[in-house]
Amino acid sequence: MPLWNVYHPPGAYSPEDKQAIAQALTGVYGRIMPKFYVGVVFQEIPAHSFYVGGEPAERFVRITVDHIARSFQSDERKLGFFKLINKILAPWVADRGFDWEMHVDETPFDLWTIQGHFPPKEGTEDEKRWMAENRASARTHA
Amino acid sequence: MPLWNVYHPPGAYSPEDKQAIAQALTGVYGRIMPKFYVGVVFQEIPAHSFYVGGEPAERFVRITVDHIARSFQSDERKLGFFKLINKILAPWVADRGFDWEMHVDETPFDLWTIQGHFPPKEGTEDEKRWMAENRASARTHA
Amino acid sequence: MPLWNVYHPPGAYSPEDKQAIAQALTGVYGRIMPKFYVGVVFQEIPAHSFYVGGEPAERFVRITVDHIARSFQSDERKLGFFKLINKILAPWVADRGFDWEMHVDETPFDLWTIQGHFPPKEGTEDEKRWMAENRASARTHA
Repeated sequence: MPLWNVYHPPGAYSPEDKQAIAQALTGVYGRIMPKFYVGVVFQEIPAHSFYVGGEPAERFVRITVDHIARSFQSDERKLGFFKLINKILAPWVADRGFDWEMHVDETPFDLWTIQGHFPPKEGTEDEKRWMAENRASARTHA
Repeated sequence: MPLWNVYHPPGAYSPEDKQAIAQALTGVYGRIMPKFYVGVVFQEIPAHSFYVGGEPAERFVRITVDHIARSFQSDERKLGFFKLINKILAPWVADRGFDWEMHVDETPFDLWTIQGHFPPKEGTEDEKRWMAENRASARTHA
Repeated sequence: MPLWNVYHPPGAYSPEDKQAIAQALTGVYGRIMPKFYVGVVFQEIPAHSFYVGGEPAERFVRITVDHIARSFQSDERKLGFFKLINKILAPWVADRGFDWEMHVDETPFDLWTIQGHFPPKEGTEDEKRWMAENRASARTHA
């Protein structure tokens, strides 16, 4: 559900770093939804290919996220989410001297499929099965 | 209108595969809108750069789509669309043993230009001309 | 706030071109918001990786933009924006013989952070400080 796109400078992250980031994020979302919903794509942006305010941004991490499975139901949830994400990402961004920016979009739940299946609605038996099995299967409800 | 982004493993698709996928998708959308609205970008995601549920996903195809020209007007249309897309993509995803996931966002019609022209509204004479000529030209209506 | 993604053919733009494009865009947005809100990512799309209407599109520039800090408040503003952008981009697209298409999405203001800070609301003292200092700092209002 969440699809994270992480634009980063060449060589910024080792495979171990990337997996650690992905696992930390999976830890956040995986409390309330199937772990395999969490996709993280890392894309190196070469020199001379990212500009901020008209200047080359060679030490910048830019993150875009699509939230699909859930939308925030209150301002408190939004604040809590970003506070948690800031804390989780700190070792890989601020603590390494990278500037960073992120934004989240919320996209339609019913325009989303995994392995061709529409994911189950929140709180259903189907969703519990997806969480327990950590894989997609046919939905039994409409 | 639709912009398809296909993240795929290195070497997953030949140029012939990619063109065949693009043509199949153009066949779907081209029934009801100009064929040149259909854009498909293929992006190879190198090893150690895509994670699902915190684990490396080396055999995964992740598709994101922006729909601009049309929005779905009913649940039936949504179901029909995904059923058709599943069938069309099967030879390149499931049948090749790739896991896959896709989601669609709907973005504002009036924040979109081609060759600097605002595309015509659905069902207008202008749209018929764009379909017939398969190219963008100045709109004659507001 | 605006994040521009420019998909372009290999070698289409020199570093000087890219910086000039980024600066021109920063000039547009920077009149009404902090200049460092303007992010522009250039991504080369290799041959055989972009299709339009089912055909390879080797001379095509495809731009996607997320607007976060502001949303358009009238049709006049939308028209004015695209008219200005067309004029600004002409030297790098139409005048070089590239076909091109762009679309803008508007994403939620309150799901966006820079350096871990929520950007200030439009017209606040905090925003004036961000503009004057051209950098992110803690917000003093809710």
